[in-house]
Amino acid sequence: MHCQSGSSEFDLGQWSDAQLARVERALERWVAPSGSIVPTLAQPMRYAVLDGGKRLRPLLVLAASQAVEGNPEAALRSACAVELIHAYSLVHDDMPCMDNDVLRRGKPTVHVQFGQASAMLAGDALQALAFELLTPDDGSVPAPMQALLCRMLARAAGGQGMAGGQAIDLASIGQPIGSQQLHEMHRLKTGALLLASVLMGAACGKHQAQALLALTDYGQAVGLAFQVVDDILDVTADSKTLGKTAGKDAAQDKPTFVSLMGLRNSQNYAQELLSQAQASLRHSGLPNTSALRALADKLVNRAF
Amino acid sequence: MHCQSGSSEFDLGQWSDAQLARVERALERWVAPSGSIVPTLAQPMRYAVLDGGKRLRPLLVLAASQAVEGNPEAALRSACAVELIHAYSLVHDDMPCMDNDVLRRGKPTVHVQFGQASAMLAGDALQALAFELLTPDDGSVPAPMQALLCRMLARAAGGQGMAGGQAIDLASIGQPIGSQQLHEMHRLKTGALLLASVLMGAACGKHQAQALLALTDYGQAVGLAFQVVDDILDVTADSKTLGKTAGKDAAQDKPTFVSLMGLRNSQNYAQELLSQAQASLRHSGLPNTSALRALADKLVNRAF
Repeated sequence: MHCQSGSSEFDLGQWSDAQLARVERALERWVAPSGSIVPTLAQPMRYAVLDGGKRLRPLLVLAASQAVEGNPEAALRSACAVELIHAYSLVHDDMPCMDNDVLRRGKPTVHVQFGQASAMLAGDALQALAFELLTPDDGSVPAPMQALLCRMLARAAGGQGMAGGQAIDLASIGQPIGSQQLHEMHRLKTGALLLASVLMGAACGKHQAQALLALTDYGQAVGLAFQVVDDILDVTADSKTLGKTAGKDAAQDKPTFVSLMGLRNSQNYAQELLSQAQASLRHSGLPNTSALRALADKLVNRAF
Repeated sequence: MHCQSGSSEFDLGQWSDAQLARVERALERWVAPSGSIVPTLAQPMRYAVLDGGKRLRPLLVLAASQAVEGNPEAALRSACAVELIHAYSLVHDDMPCMDNDVLRRGKPTVHVQFGQASAMLAGDALQALAFELLTPDDGSVPAPMQALLCRMLARAAGGQGMAGGQAIDLASIGQPIGSQQLHEMHRLKTGALLLASVLMGAACGKHQAQALLALTDYGQAVGLAFQVVDDILDVTADSKTLGKTAGKDAAQDKPTFVSLMGLRNSQNYAQELLSQAQASLRHSGLPNTSALRALADKLVNRAF
């Protein structure tokens, strides 16, 4: 991942490589390591999480934590926890009773590889593991911080967050949907966990009211922009580039930003959201927002 | 639920009625109340949880909390949280890719009533809600207690607990299985959450090492006894009494304590575990274990 942003001092590619190496090592160590869990469950859990994914959410956690000089262990655990929630949601979302997708990150989806029962269980276990990672008993993360991180993640994952957004998505297929409903769906379905990533990173440091408000604005803008770009790429990119089936939204008659406002307007909207996110960072009063700034830029201007 | 135990001073029926009324009111208020969550998700969530179930796990939480004079709000939240984990596991377990069961608590299962996609999402959202209940931001539960409760629940629900046990169960159908493996499966599949119920109740009070060790012994014995009795009832009771399909274990060629050691030996084993549980309580040094004692007795001598 190499940075094409206007920031001359900060090398996003270098920063991301270093952070991702930490995240991958941590996931490798924490997700169903050999002997800890029955192999028929450990295998689909590890398959779903390891060696794949852009790790956008972990990078947002770590970038936000960096901006507030957060507790490194808490940030790393939070980064992995949000990724586990994301990974489990993909496993369940891909199943035949949901999107019935067979390709994910360029590989067969978990239920294709291991069967539906194992896929469902692996997803369930990954969600539990996310909360386990946030609550170590080794003194590395202060207990009040653990509680706050669990609260943020639970809210973002549940019925008033990701799962709620998926339910709206499910009910909206083939239905006429307005701009407001589409925004609400994505605010929950993908936005809540992206926002939680930013706020959990911020929660690893000291609380500064002004900074938290600014990071909330940043997280909301970035979360929405991510989905707008996702909708754009579903139209403009091919399956090989995406690592998943392209053109599925249109094929399934799913409402998207592109179907609602057209391609050009969607592209303009994504840029507008990027500007909002960058403005929030400037107003945050935080000294070290380089990674957050570069990530937002990369995310909106990505090709996959 | 009326007590047939030897305890003359303690009326389990009266105690249970009072506790269950609190639990039902709390679940009614906390599980997807009107307007908080999109109705297509709220309905299956509430259907899966409300107006059904023996609420054994909540009663264990509240009985253990009573034994240690625990924080009442923390205990009530813990009671509901373990019930949500239990309820979500039933929803997913009943789905066609798992047990494919159509009857639960005398009602059509969630996927029969609402479809598989909604059932899967409702289960996912219930798991997240469990952790949300444990992490209120109103100051009612001290943050370190929240963290401890989340840790206990996450471990009991995940790959080294309930989900792991379900994976072993899944892999064991039609396989020869020994006594040790059967114990291990149940220790995880049902035992971990029952033990967590007792320990979470205990965690709502002050920590006394001796009491915690004794309650761990109690919770393990009760958890195992519960499963032994479950296997016995699958053979001896009918579907109407059970509120779920009887005789399924034998029909699916699942290993059970009855298939492994016979009916009479299983019944003796359940009584032996009950004696162990009661002995643990006597050695706990805790003054108020009446409810825990009566619950163990009721659980082993139940008819459904």
